[in-house]
Amino acid sequence: MYARPLARLIEELQKLPGVGPKTAQRLALHLLKRPDAEVQALAQALVDAKSQMGYCSICFHLSSEPVCDICKSTSRDLQTLCIVADSRDVIALEKTREYRGKYHVLGGLISPMEGIGPEQLNIGPLVHRVNQDNIQEAIIAISPSIEGDTTTLYVGQLLKPFTKVTRIAFGLPMGGDLEYADEVTLARALEGRRSLD
Amino acid sequence: MYARPLARLIEELQKLPGVGPKTAQRLALHLLKRPDAEVQALAQALVDAKSQMGYCSICFHLSSEPVCDICKSTSRDLQTLCIVADSRDVIALEKTREYRGKYHVLGGLISPMEGIGPEQLNIGPLVHRVNQDNIQEAIIAISPSIEGDTTTLYVGQLLKPFTKVTRIAFGLPMGGDLEYADEVTLARALEGRRSLD
Repeated sequence: MYARPLARLIEELQKLPGVGPKTAQRLALHLLKRPDAEVQALAQALVDAKSQMGYCSICFHLSSEPVCDICKSTSRDLQTLCIVADSRDVIALEKTREYRGKYHVLGGLISPMEGIGPEQLNIGPLVHRVNQDNIQEAIIAISPSIEGDTTTLYVGQLLKPFTKVTRIAFGLPMGGDLEYADEVTLARALEGRRSLD
Repeated sequence: MYARPLARLIEELQKLPGVGPKTAQRLALHLLKRPDAEVQALAQALVDAKSQMGYCSICFHLSSEPVCDICKSTSRDLQTLCIVADSRDVIALEKTREYRGKYHVLGGLISPMEGIGPEQLNIGPLVHRVNQDNIQEAIIAISPSIEGDTTTLYVGQLLKPFTKVTRIAFGLPMGGDLEYADEVTLARALEGRRSLD
């Protein structure tokens, strides 16, 4: 149906998440109409990002240098540590501009179903860090799910001897309508109620 | 927020149609987790497709060779020509497996709003071809729209002296519910009614 180079491009594009055959074809035909320089720039950006990006040796956040900008910063609260599953969670939290402490990226969640145990995550370095750096509070910011709750429980137990451990709140989202909230969210919101004082 | 190589990749991905900042970030982070070889393959496919794909010198369909497979084929009906706006229309028609003639890709539609006149489309070579190749029927397969209708009218007038000119049918789509069809589609369906014989 398609000439070989076009077919190969469509095939490679289809490996992207959320890209099916129709979208891949649309993207490929779009790219063929763009200037040479634009396609070259995308190809180069792919190769560069893949070869130059790695993980921060302290917090395991995505970084192009051995130590990331957040870990390097001296203006942040050094005694608060936020524990997240993935680098994209760091990005989401940074966007709030509410958190000024440091991060630790686990690199996933404990999931016996997918064969991911604690030893595959960056948990050893976390315990070492909490111990070493005199962390006053470890905030676990992990989504509520079976894997998330398991990981939170596991990490919490390990850190409790060394520091105060908290978990972010779950409840009704802002702008959320109580009537349309699912039962689990509503149950969590009730459970997490606070006095109005 | 992001390290430079990652930021550049996100920026380049955002230039793709239908890809916003969130999707671009998701794609970029996904790619960073994939094996080196997979990312290299995508980058290479981009460069190869862009450098190796061109247009068939006869029908202007996308092709990696000077003459495309459809034009080269000797088993197809040489006296029927289907005129379409874009290469993706050729692909859509080929998927039906109903059409066995040849194609001619105009490369767009006449659109005074966007400053596209007949001289920017592959209309000259089309007239020459119809004349030269003893075409018995030219089927115009162009979507119904202001630009599509204008182009159809224009091309039709040019070709009528040399061959029979037809246009594909418009009406209720298969599985379409008459009650929910828009008025324009319904009007076209009525207008295009055929005797039941």
